[in-house]
Amino acid sequence: MALITTVHDALVQLLGAPKVSSATEVLAIHATDKWHASASPEAVVFAETTEDIVRVLQFANERGIPVTTRGAGVGYVGGCVPGQGGIVLSVSRMNRILELNPEDGVAVVQPGVITGDLQDAARGVGWYYPPDPASLRECSLGGNIATNAGGPRCLKYGVTRPYVLGLEVVLADGSVLRCGSRCHKNKTGFDLVGLFVGSEGMLGVVSEATLRLIPHPETRAMLTATFSEFPQAAHAVQRILNSGHLPSALEITDEFTLRAAREYLGPDALPEGNAHLIVEIDGRQAAVDNERRELAPLLEKLGALTVEHHTADEACESIWQLRRDFSYSLRHTGLTKLNEDIVVPRSKLVELVEFAHGLQEQTGIAVACFGHAGDGNIHTNLMVEDYQNPSVRAHADKALDQLFTWILGNGGVITGEHGIGLAKKRWFADAVGKESVATHAAIKAALDPKGILNPGKFI
Amino acid sequence: MALITTVHDALVQLLGAPKVSSATEVLAIHATDKWHASASPEAVVFAETTEDIVRVLQFANERGIPVTTRGAGVGYVGGCVPGQGGIVLSVSRMNRILELNPEDGVAVVQPGVITGDLQDAARGVGWYYPPDPASLRECSLGGNIATNAGGPRCLKYGVTRPYVLGLEVVLADGSVLRCGSRCHKNKTGFDLVGLFVGSEGMLGVVSEATLRLIPHPETRAMLTATFSEFPQAAHAVQRILNSGHLPSALEITDEFTLRAAREYLGPDALPEGNAHLIVEIDGRQAAVDNERRELAPLLEKLGALTVEHHTADEACESIWQLRRDFSYSLRHTGLTKLNEDIVVPRSKLVELVEFAHGLQEQTGIAVACFGHAGDGNIHTNLMVEDYQNPSVRAHADKALDQLFTWILGNGGVITGEHGIGLAKKRWFADAVGKESVATHAAIKAALDPKGILNPGKFI
Repeated sequence: MALITTVHDALVQLLGAPKVSSATEVLAIHATDKWHASASPEAVVFAETTEDIVRVLQFANERGIPVTTRGAGVGYVGGCVPGQGGIVLSVSRMNRILELNPEDGVAVVQPGVITGDLQDAARGVGWYYPPDPASLRECSLGGNIATNAGGPRCLKYGVTRPYVLGLEVVLADGSVLRCGSRCHKNKTGFDLVGLFVGSEGMLGVVSEATLRLIPHPETRAMLTATFSEFPQAAHAVQRILNSGHLPSALEITDEFTLRAAREYLGPDALPEGNAHLIVEIDGRQAAVDNERRELAPLLEKLGALTVEHHTADEACESIWQLRRDFSYSLRHTGLTKLNEDIVVPRSKLVELVEFAHGLQEQTGIAVACFGHAGDGNIHTNLMVEDYQNPSVRAHADKALDQLFTWILGNGGVITGEHGIGLAKKRWFADAVGKESVATHAAIKAALDPKGILNPGKFI
Repeated sequence: MALITTVHDALVQLLGAPKVSSATEVLAIHATDKWHASASPEAVVFAETTEDIVRVLQFANERGIPVTTRGAGVGYVGGCVPGQGGIVLSVSRMNRILELNPEDGVAVVQPGVITGDLQDAARGVGWYYPPDPASLRECSLGGNIATNAGGPRCLKYGVTRPYVLGLEVVLADGSVLRCGSRCHKNKTGFDLVGLFVGSEGMLGVVSEATLRLIPHPETRAMLTATFSEFPQAAHAVQRILNSGHLPSALEITDEFTLRAAREYLGPDALPEGNAHLIVEIDGRQAAVDNERRELAPLLEKLGALTVEHHTADEACESIWQLRRDFSYSLRHTGLTKLNEDIVVPRSKLVELVEFAHGLQEQTGIAVACFGHAGDGNIHTNLMVEDYQNPSVRAHADKALDQLFTWILGNGGVITGEHGIGLAKKRWFADAVGKESVATHAAIKAALDPKGILNPGKFI
């Protein structure tokens, strides 16, 4: 316990007692995220300024103490679990929107700002921050940057990366790097901003971000359609895109998920059909009205059993709530949901779901698929009973091995949105190949030679 | 001459004579790009396969011989000028579109494919590759990737980076790295794809790229407007975006450029006014018609002297031709055009042009500004008489110093599209700061420890 006291006391001396805690309940909260792994840090620092982060990193780097940065702690892969103990560096108190500037089309934020709060603030002045992870009401922009977070609208608007114009990053040795700018284009040197976005806290600590805003679309609307079989819905996705439409979202849901949703929400919550498709469009009012009127007959022609129109903002939100309820209804089954955010080339949607059915038959583990069909990013959920049982877990792990092997053999990727963290570490080398592992290691060594930043993860 | 013979002969032995040249006229062509610097290589290799690139890099890395990769050679900053001699590695023969796949929304290309050829091929199947550098009929995708090329449409669609899903890269030691994938989302590890995009040939040689295609907009239209003064046009840019419109392009042109254009094209080529604005919109037919009808009265309300509608594809193309003629008309003045692709925060457009006028008065060097107003990327052209005269060049360099000092002091960046290369090397450290220079050097050393790839540039 001597070391704990020392680290704690040294941090208190460095930053003052209100910014440091080793209280049991605080350590427990900072030991986990939404995944099941847990590891206690020795101390938690609540940074309030860039200078606080500098001091912590200088201190830790000199002594070789692990530092795991944490935003809102709602990751799905154990990315902010301090697997090797040391310090958890929370940026949750750095939660101010420093500037909202429509003239320049930028927002300057601290990393602890909740994503939905920035969206609301931008909306208030008629501007738009599009990235929309499902957890947007609880996740932070720093976490979004660490994982290059996506969401349904990324089909049209892209993931987090294109919205990050500039970063202030504290490097492992405590030096402060500013990269990018507040300009919407910048070709000065290497893309350091891009290197930090998605680096899962392993290359530096983001202390400030300058984000790109775009004009808020005037309005939006939705079509929801049901089909008797999944391949018809997948085919509709292809046909919509091949007809020159680029919806803001194209969300597909399979039979297993719909059955769980009907049980959870009641049989009348959804019209008949074993596949469900959400088509969201946005833009100027006349454009949206027109596109909706073009798409509805297309869906009918493609065999939709039902097509429903949702034209007001509120109506669209209630469909997104239904979409979230699909997820809750899976949890409501009482089974443990292993949510794998795999991606396949869009042409493989049907094959993926067929493979998932086969996997279910073979392993006895139910598999529910739903997600962002437009970009092939399908959340594939293995629904496991009694997951705490070690032999069940081993069985589930074997099923995941089969899933990922199939994914990689079919040109897919093992994570589209959540990152590698601890959860997918086992498959990382197979996914990227040995040259990529070596390149990752070389970059990591160049920026964090002592390996103090989020150690024990995929490098 | 012994070394030249040796390198040439060794390469011939390695690759066969048809892929190697040291002929005087070949060396001369490969000594320059569109900038004025020139340096002869010892030999030029015309790679035809990834394996050719591997062999050249293994050979060069073992012996510490500089390798400068070259696409179509139409860069504006001397980026592919072999400043330290050695080998120019041309990928111009690797010019095949390997796959065009609308179902997956991807194209797989070799680096020597001409950008416009890919756009045409994609258009032929109803799909779209948006990045549109002005040189798209002569530049190559490999060069676009090396410089993260932009263009007018980047306002709505983004620059090259978001369209690069996967890369095959030959590293300095000849190992072949595959990064990214053919999926539209991928969060597996660091963003290595992004690190190579825009790295100006200093971190590896791209031998194949998997590019993202999107559904081709059904149609497009344009409004062109003239204003009596530049600030009115800049204000219109702000108002358009603040009214919830996101045009595909917003191009602004200043008085000096318009005067040159009227001289070059004749007085009737353009309606009266000292500032010119192009607003291009695209999407579904009804949406485009409607948005054009919304924007025209807005422009009139904002003081436009004239507003013209261009509704067919051909009409839009003729406006883009006019826009290119602005550039030709500047060359037609007989002056040397130092085209600086600076970017300012969008709110600083008017201040930039005022500064440019002041610079003109102070230095006697005419300054012409036009470009991508929507993202603040204004090509600022210093028009120099007798540029070959060393004292004139020193005077022009001093004026550029003043320009870049002002840009950096006002939150701008020194290059939005062209890159650093040799042309902007002098300002690189001031632009990014010492922590960034150190980070660039660390990454360069990690990936190219012997420094053979495009040496003598900004690191």
